[in-house]
Amino acid sequence: MSHHHRVLSVIGPSRPSPEVARDAYLLGRFLGQRGAVVVCGGLGGVMEAVSRGAHEAGGLTVGILPGADPKAANPYVRVPLATGLGHFRNYLVVAAGTLVLAVGESRGTLSEATMALTLGKPVWSLHWRTPLEGLQSFANLTELQEALLQWWNSPAGR
Amino acid sequence: MSHHHRVLSVIGPSRPSPEVARDAYLLGRFLGQRGAVVVCGGLGGVMEAVSRGAHEAGGLTVGILPGADPKAANPYVRVPLATGLGHFRNYLVVAAGTLVLAVGESRGTLSEATMALTLGKPVWSLHWRTPLEGLQSFANLTELQEALLQWWNSPAGR
Amino acid sequence: MSHHHRVLSVIGPSRPSPEVARDAYLLGRFLGQRGAVVVCGGLGGVMEAVSRGAHEAGGLTVGILPGADPKAANPYVRVPLATGLGHFRNYLVVAAGTLVLAVGESRGTLSEATMALTLGKPVWSLHWRTPLEGLQSFANLTELQEALLQWWNSPAGR
Amino acid sequence: MSHHHRVLSVIGPSRPSPEVARDAYLLGRFLGQRGAVVVCGGLGGVMEAVSRGAHEAGGLTVGILPGADPKAANPYVRVPLATGLGHFRNYLVVAAGTLVLAVGESRGTLSEATMALTLGKPVWSLHWRTPLEGLQSFANLTELQEALLQWWNSPAGR
Repeated sequence: MSHHHRVLSVIGPSRPSPEVARDAYLLGRFLGQRGAVVVCGGLGGVMEAVSRGAHEAGGLTVGILPGADPKAANPYVRVPLATGLGHFRNYLVVAAGTLVLAVGESRGTLSEATMALTLGKPVWSLHWRTPLEGLQSFANLTELQEALLQWWNSPAGR
Repeated sequence: MSHHHRVLSVIGPSRPSPEVARDAYLLGRFLGQRGAVVVCGGLGGVMEAVSRGAHEAGGLTVGILPGADPKAANPYVRVPLATGLGHFRNYLVVAAGTLVLAVGESRGTLSEATMALTLGKPVWSLHWRTPLEGLQSFANLTELQEALLQWWNSPAGR
Repeated sequence: MSHHHRVLSVIGPSRPSPEVARDAYLLGRFLGQRGAVVVCGGLGGVMEAVSRGAHEAGGLTVGILPGADPKAANPYVRVPLATGLGHFRNYLVVAAGTLVLAVGESRGTLSEATMALTLGKPVWSLHWRTPLEGLQSFANLTELQEALLQWWNSPAGR
Repeated sequence: MSHHHRVLSVIGPSRPSPEVARDAYLLGRFLGQRGAVVVCGGLGGVMEAVSRGAHEAGGLTVGILPGADPKAANPYVRVPLATGLGHFRNYLVVAAGTLVLAVGESRGTLSEATMALTLGKPVWSLHWRTPLEGLQSFANLTELQEALLQWWNSPAGR
């Protein structure tokens, strides 16, 4: 029997609006409560908000860091993974998740979302503007959460 | 005295329209005639068109390949560099150029262009639709070529 | 206050001798009991033995996988991180740990140990033959465990 | 008809003995005269010696650099490829060649040679001490050159 946990990648701007940061935090709580491992870039903004939410809900948080020092991770990352790869670590963040969740949009987030789609990952977004073929955009957090619950009950989500 | 050549990255869709492919070919000729090394992803579409143009003009072409087999490169790549890194190699393509030229747009190209901007590279584009902060879009090949000539005469282009 | 856990990388052959596999398992138990996160390559042999030991002791295990499918991880990996980067992921395994522990030697392990030393990491080994400048070799598991306890009480180990 | 050139990777210490540096230079001349593209890490020591030899013989030299600045390459590198990947670029150097030639030994060279063997590449060495399963060690430059000529006439070398 496998002890693997579900791994989800969460991406988003390092300088989010208060509304985006709040939804990232609430999404983190939702994921943490349901036992999903949250993988993110490990630094500030949406990365910190989602880590804090997941951590406070008892969930496991992994930060894949651009630098070589694990101490650079935000305090809610339980597993800081230093890479020394700079922005190239963005690829690793999206490669790790079976699903990629984007909360808010920035140039870096756009780069990660398009890379995730190129890798064939489902990408689900909140607070998103730029239309991308294959990206599924949600109107609000409630709808995103409902879709997550459905997906976890489907064969793809196991 | 350094024998370094100028290295430019060219990105674009693997299934371009005839017009995009033609401009990629002509851009390749222009770059090859002026001694620039053209770095691309080494496969088909815009990658092959720009390689063919540069090669026919006597220029040097480098293909950074996703797979482990150098023979997968298009025939106009003189230096096939196998990586075995899959789509991660896209980042290497844009990291190599002092300037990144996008001819045509696709999801993969959008990912590469946004990564290039994140790395602080100038990104100049032809046949581009999605507005991106920092990306400089040109109306036609002639204007792009004029900007390249100016840039090569500026300190940044040396 | 930071919630970071200590991250240690464990490397070793995928086809170890029974003695090496047993020590990897016991080392995993030791690390898991002390709250260290064990990062490894996620597959079989020493990777599976150390994951199983750490998991059974209630510890957290992370597998950085060569392929794109998290299901390829051994069953004792709780956080399977797919990369799609093939053997390149070996570098990520050693980059993640503040300390790299090698149990048993193989060509792949030698490559990882020398890379870790090149990155400036301390590398401690058991069942090791090839002398490497900077590598610290231990005569048996007990001595390695004592050194780990000392290191955790030193400033470098925090 | 393909215009691909043969790509060979050359690895070796950045602070070689005079004898090792001289053989690297002469090997570069030999490779350059025969139209092979020499890929190396682009910096000093063996990397510079082999680049200089190949360049002076009219050959093409590619330097895959650890940093983000192409100007860091030694002056005999005609195609400087910046990566920003630090020591991880060592992997790319050996992944690029159909054959990996090691001239002299150091910890970094050992790491690259073992990685190359792990990737299934033939690794041929000069001035090498540590025995490695699969590595073919040559007694002197003449013997290495003879083996290269034979290999180029074999199906694997084409």
